[in-house]
Amino acid sequence: MILENDIILIRYADKVYIKKAQKGQSISIKSNILKYDDIIGKEEGLFLNGFFVAKPTLEEIVKYGFKRETQIVYPKDAFYISLKLDIPSCKNILEFGMGSAVMSAVILSIAKDGSNLYTFEENQKAYDNAIKNLKTFGFLDNRLKATLGNYSDLTYEESCFDCAFVDTKEPWEYIDKLHKELKPGANVCFLVPTYNQVSRLLESLKEKFFVYEISEILLRKLKPNPERLRPEDFMPAHTAILIFVRNIYH
Amino acid sequence: MILENDIILIRYADKVYIKKAQKGQSISIKSNILKYDDIIGKEEGLFLNGFFVAKPTLEEIVKYGFKRETQIVYPKDAFYISLKLDIPSCKNILEFGMGSAVMSAVILSIAKDGSNLYTFEENQKAYDNAIKNLKTFGFLDNRLKATLGNYSDLTYEESCFDCAFVDTKEPWEYIDKLHKELKPGANVCFLVPTYNQVSRLLESLKEKFFVYEISEILLRKLKPNPERLRPEDFMPAHTAILIFVRNIYH
Amino acid sequence: MILENDIILIRYADKVYIKKAQKGQSISIKSNILKYDDIIGKEEGLFLNGFFVAKPTLEEIVKYGFKRETQIVYPKDAFYISLKLDIPSCKNILEFGMGSAVMSAVILSIAKDGSNLYTFEENQKAYDNAIKNLKTFGFLDNRLKATLGNYSDLTYEESCFDCAFVDTKEPWEYIDKLHKELKPGANVCFLVPTYNQVSRLLESLKEKFFVYEISEILLRKLKPNPERLRPEDFMPAHTAILIFVRNIYH
Amino acid sequence: MILENDIILIRYADKVYIKKAQKGQSISIKSNILKYDDIIGKEEGLFLNGFFVAKPTLEEIVKYGFKRETQIVYPKDAFYISLKLDIPSCKNILEFGMGSAVMSAVILSIAKDGSNLYTFEENQKAYDNAIKNLKTFGFLDNRLKATLGNYSDLTYEESCFDCAFVDTKEPWEYIDKLHKELKPGANVCFLVPTYNQVSRLLESLKEKFFVYEISEILLRKLKPNPERLRPEDFMPAHTAILIFVRNIYH
Repeated sequence: MILENDIILIRYADKVYIKKAQKGQSISIKSNILKYDDIIGKEEGLFLNGFFVAKPTLEEIVKYGFKRETQIVYPKDAFYISLKLDIPSCKNILEFGMGSAVMSAVILSIAKDGSNLYTFEENQKAYDNAIKNLKTFGFLDNRLKATLGNYSDLTYEESCFDCAFVDTKEPWEYIDKLHKELKPGANVCFLVPTYNQVSRLLESLKEKFFVYEISEILLRKLKPNPERLRPEDFMPAHTAILIFVRNIYH
Repeated sequence: MILENDIILIRYADKVYIKKAQKGQSISIKSNILKYDDIIGKEEGLFLNGFFVAKPTLEEIVKYGFKRETQIVYPKDAFYISLKLDIPSCKNILEFGMGSAVMSAVILSIAKDGSNLYTFEENQKAYDNAIKNLKTFGFLDNRLKATLGNYSDLTYEESCFDCAFVDTKEPWEYIDKLHKELKPGANVCFLVPTYNQVSRLLESLKEKFFVYEISEILLRKLKPNPERLRPEDFMPAHTAILIFVRNIYH
Repeated sequence: MILENDIILIRYADKVYIKKAQKGQSISIKSNILKYDDIIGKEEGLFLNGFFVAKPTLEEIVKYGFKRETQIVYPKDAFYISLKLDIPSCKNILEFGMGSAVMSAVILSIAKDGSNLYTFEENQKAYDNAIKNLKTFGFLDNRLKATLGNYSDLTYEESCFDCAFVDTKEPWEYIDKLHKELKPGANVCFLVPTYNQVSRLLESLKEKFFVYEISEILLRKLKPNPERLRPEDFMPAHTAILIFVRNIYH
Repeated sequence: MILENDIILIRYADKVYIKKAQKGQSISIKSNILKYDDIIGKEEGLFLNGFFVAKPTLEEIVKYGFKRETQIVYPKDAFYISLKLDIPSCKNILEFGMGSAVMSAVILSIAKDGSNLYTFEENQKAYDNAIKNLKTFGFLDNRLKATLGNYSDLTYEESCFDCAFVDTKEPWEYIDKLHKELKPGANVCFLVPTYNQVSRLLESLKEKFFVYEISEILLRKLKPNPERLRPEDFMPAHTAILIFVRNIYH
């Protein structure tokens, strides 16, 4: 049931909107109009005048609802990373570089009760935006321990983290700290945009981390026309390169 | 800490093994040998003679540990699907076609306590193997309601499921049932291997489901050589086509 | 040497223009201006104010110089097709569907003296545009035999063509004619945009043609930044599906 | 017509062979046999017991007929490069790194009469193999000027080459020479396997060459089953990175 002031997902052909279901408001595309009064109090799944209305999923929230202060981690990458890191099996999770909080949101969605997400963002504007995104869409809870800062602000006892996600400009500076703070065998994902960073990172990881996968994910979509089935004309060619490693026992 | 009889992950260059840490046993590759006696009682993250040893993640378990009676759902697809379906927000989850239980395992990993996974597999051999895989690797719990059968064996009250995953040969036969049994707005993912199936499925979905994405995921890996960084020589060109739809209110 | 009224290529960052070097004319991008008077009489390869100037290649002509009445065959596809068909070894070449004449231009560029390109286009507007493109950029010569029409207008003796390229909406209608008019063993490429057409075409080809390759070409470009090397953000996801077959002896 | 001792192409499902049609010889796959006596004197395009027989195309010759002393340039890349370089419009063509002579063969196929291909290979074994490949398959003619050596053995007058293809380990060493020997505006393609080489090359090209494209070509094939149309299971993920530049006037 869609209630007044609920956050709603509106799809129209391939357009997507995240809105608040406020009385008296409406959205119009071309000559079609959707009045929110007509959907408040109704079930999800309404399909009116070309508009499809329901509550947004995690993906729709982070992709279309989150405000962006930075390049976001795309859902295709965030979903792969969070499950490769096996977040549901981790108690203490470390994140460097909240960005717009997409990864934080995904991690908090699947991390178990009683786990902790220690996350760091050194840019004030990005930090504020990240926290606001998490708050607006209901991801804030006591599992989140967010710090405005970077790896030098991490001051926990050694070997207490089960996994880490690192999305910072110079991730090689984090290697020593990560090697010490992570449990032996712990899984880490580094996300970088350039091949130069991959090379430099690989050099830095030597002897401290076992590199087991470097990958790029390409998502190719098809147009939903059953009689003329074919891929869309364009696709993202690049979002990020993912480096997966595990902490070598020292 | 790796204990006797723990299930362990062993990596050697790009080879991967899931084994039981049994006393007196060992693994040898080329002229290198890893004696399990040398790792029992040690911390994870050991790196000995080229062998890296730790406990396996969800991905490593389903990819290298699960026995296969059928083509499996690949982790790249399973991770994307399960989070697109927003499994952590679902109470009653429906699955048709357990196959080798990869999706079941991923779903059970992220579904909340108190949720239910109603899953159906009509092939006896596949069913037995799926249950065995889940049992062997500790995924079995009271959230799982598995049935040897298909959609005609689904006899719950209407509109009670929050989402569904369908991986069967003739998914168009499931449309009417799904439309009725799923909550309005509920998310469904169909997985099919061929373009013909996509076309036929799209025809069947009309007016009952809103199609919002059809996609293929390509995972391109790089070789971990910092001075000669380049992609691997080969990659999977195809695993499955994913069709994401939402139930239209009736 | 660039002479007055020569057709010239102008590149500015990732923008590309095909222009005529007319006295008194100029092009300006942002606050930069290139006066054609400054390049007439100069050597190719000028690099002034961010503008690079030279004579255009075949690719640049068909991609940026040709007017489009239809979706063009992209150079990545046209180059692959024309050399898979081994045009330089063919005496009589057949083309159905000139479109905007990209394939005609590429074929004429590599076909030997004394060969013939018999090409058909049934749409008057497309035909006129195709001929005009070929004429404007100097591809017209006596090897080209263009007909406003379709396969029913092909009235040559049997088994006289060495290869064929077919880019029409209903290519299955061409199979019988092709089978008869082509030499045994002759190579054919069909270009279609949808998977449905591939399936239908494959059915029609049975027993008459040996299908040896169906392929899609993806071109992923990198940004030319040596310190931050990475792919471009977007790429074409789809231009065409290519079906390569050879005529079975009857 | 297939004559005794002709070089022939044999396809059987997705297997491909280049053979000599010698009397008394045969090929057998599984329980099927093709006796060459049954095809000598027959037309191309025979389809017997699952074997398809015809004369090979340029692509089939370089891919399946050429002996390999080195990693070859794949046809998908060679075709794209040779036409991007607009070989048919070039009089003097330069090649550094013959490798197994795939590019030489493709260039010679489309270069006009009266043009010259000056090609260099510094490895004796590769050079001998390259020349032998070209000879065996009839590509040798007086347009080819092959030298056992590298760029330091290039001693022609300045600014006389219309384009160049460079496939050597350290292509940055060739920049100065190329810049001088090529005509202003001349087109060059560098082929390298690694991203590190791309970065280093880009640094070296600055101010001497205008970089206009860096690309990778992915070829995704489909299985030829009309009722179950889908991509093949695996594809090459990487062959080479292509850097296209034009000589800046000095």
